[in-house]
Amino acid sequence: MLARISGGAFVLAAGLLSLIPLPGVGQPEKADPLPSWNDGPAKKSILDFVRSSTDKANPLYVPESHRITTFDQDGTLWVEQPLYSQVLFAFDRVKALAPKHPEWKDKEPFKTILTGDRDALAKLSIQDFELVVAETHTGMTIEEFHTVVKDWLATAKHPHFKRPYTECIYQPMLEVMKYLRANGFKTYIVTGGGQEFVRVYAEAVYGVPPEQVIGSAGQTKYEIRDGKSVLVKLPKVLLIDDKGGKPEGINLVIGRRPVAAFGNSDGDREMLEYTQSGGNGRLMMLVHHDDAEREFAYGAKSKIGTFSDGLMAESKKRGWNVISMKNDWKRIFAFEK
Amino acid sequence: MLARISGGAFVLAAGLLSLIPLPGVGQPEKADPLPSWNDGPAKKSILDFVRSSTDKANPLYVPESHRITTFDQDGTLWVEQPLYSQVLFAFDRVKALAPKHPEWKDKEPFKTILTGDRDALAKLSIQDFELVVAETHTGMTIEEFHTVVKDWLATAKHPHFKRPYTECIYQPMLEVMKYLRANGFKTYIVTGGGQEFVRVYAEAVYGVPPEQVIGSAGQTKYEIRDGKSVLVKLPKVLLIDDKGGKPEGINLVIGRRPVAAFGNSDGDREMLEYTQSGGNGRLMMLVHHDDAEREFAYGAKSKIGTFSDGLMAESKKRGWNVISMKNDWKRIFAFEK
Repeated sequence: MLARISGGAFVLAAGLLSLIPLPGVGQPEKADPLPSWNDGPAKKSILDFVRSSTDKANPLYVPESHRITTFDQDGTLWVEQPLYSQVLFAFDRVKALAPKHPEWKDKEPFKTILTGDRDALAKLSIQDFELVVAETHTGMTIEEFHTVVKDWLATAKHPHFKRPYTECIYQPMLEVMKYLRANGFKTYIVTGGGQEFVRVYAEAVYGVPPEQVIGSAGQTKYEIRDGKSVLVKLPKVLLIDDKGGKPEGINLVIGRRPVAAFGNSDGDREMLEYTQSGGNGRLMMLVHHDDAEREFAYGAKSKIGTFSDGLMAESKKRGWNVISMKNDWKRIFAFEK
Repeated sequence: MLARISGGAFVLAAGLLSLIPLPGVGQPEKADPLPSWNDGPAKKSILDFVRSSTDKANPLYVPESHRITTFDQDGTLWVEQPLYSQVLFAFDRVKALAPKHPEWKDKEPFKTILTGDRDALAKLSIQDFELVVAETHTGMTIEEFHTVVKDWLATAKHPHFKRPYTECIYQPMLEVMKYLRANGFKTYIVTGGGQEFVRVYAEAVYGVPPEQVIGSAGQTKYEIRDGKSVLVKLPKVLLIDDKGGKPEGINLVIGRRPVAAFGNSDGDREMLEYTQSGGNGRLMMLVHHDDAEREFAYGAKSKIGTFSDGLMAESKKRGWNVISMKNDWKRIFAFEK
């Protein structure tokens, strides 16, 4: 008697069924999916979440089509101190384009960026940054912009770690993403950073394809250039994917609420609230930067990646998991010994 | 001897390997994946495209992560004559909400919609329609809007076919979507219609999940209502997903160019150009409504779903496939005998 076991394979099964062990029996113990995490409540909450949401018999079971998870990037997946990498990229663009813009020598914020005065740089506002982005990131096609970012990433180094930014990635979070994907979850990046900037490396670095990168986005315009259809980046904001903009971006691109969300700062609060409001059994986690020795210790007072006292209070009240980098992470970077 | 065949199943394999046929051997000839299509150049172009783009040895091979395909909806996947279903939905919303808006009796375009004068209705402009959408589709949460659409779809009937709109679906196109998905392609809807409107039924009707529906979209605003995080629909346009807006929407949500695109009107031209500009071996197809007997015959002169002479000329010049509903489709609807 031929019985179909899988795909196109048939096996003689008469009388042999009793020899087929149940799945799992006789197999080696599964390796720890989160080896860079210390045992503790943070690690346990991730393992518990995956177990309950993938177990059909569990009331918290989540069908595969609803297994949407979202990750902030700066400070959650990679280093954001002393300055967002994309701000450094924008500053480098100003320097690279300065010869074509002699007027920048006397025009703020370009003047400050070109002189490189650290104290003055630290005082630049969000509006200053938006002006820089509008002048340096636009007018070119999406493909041209990708090339510029790729070239920058190939040479730029993190000022403290002296390594490419794409190596300053939190190994424990990579393990979480991998573990979730292995269990049928989709892992989206939901970043306040530029969508097109992050798309350049997200697939190679995080295993996240372009269609799963949601970020701040400018308007584009369809054009024919040299006989080819292209999209040109315009100096007009379409979406600021931060705070309330994160749920808005999630709905625009995904159209379902996440069942798990990971962040590290006040900018992620609304994304976590929106996730939790979707139903029971959701997982909300915040990375807390409390490891001055291996990375940086910052939080309530920092301008970059503010983790305010209000957010800490809300986390406690709502049962969100705060990850202590110092205590919960055995290893932070893959390049560590 | 135990050999692992799949997942966690083991079988006694000593001496039995010869009894396991190679995949495919002894299996019945594969069924025609496109049974509602007549043999002809349109059907052949779809089969050829799938064959070449999934064959690793073929120079036109497309890796699975790049197998992105896009489908217009109105007139491409379902009936758009005599009026877009969403326009009829909006008109019904005006009627339903009229008791709360006594001022509409004397205010255009609401007055015309409430009197139901067919000639006057036919003269309403896009701006009129946008005003109606702004007044009737907003102020509520995304979830509330979904409920309103669901309720409407449950009772509304197509004026000619006297069936729910969700049955007025082109069976040959459903087969194409299914066939593409079976070969590792993702099938996206890219519609000029409302993204949230189409998301309500796209998964049940087309097998397309919410995150693969790109459409015209309004801005939303994150709020806490009754202690729950919600997104409220605002009367502000974010994206008009038509003409040049289609490539813009595709880039925003997908971030890759499609390798195949299907449309039926001048509103899809830019999407097909954008697809073709991505490289060799792309598939561009346009449904031509030339079957007055089984559906509708329209095109160059129609206000709804205009297929202009210019588009026909461009199709010929660029080698796009024009699908004749009359000649290429054996069956149009699943409900046909």
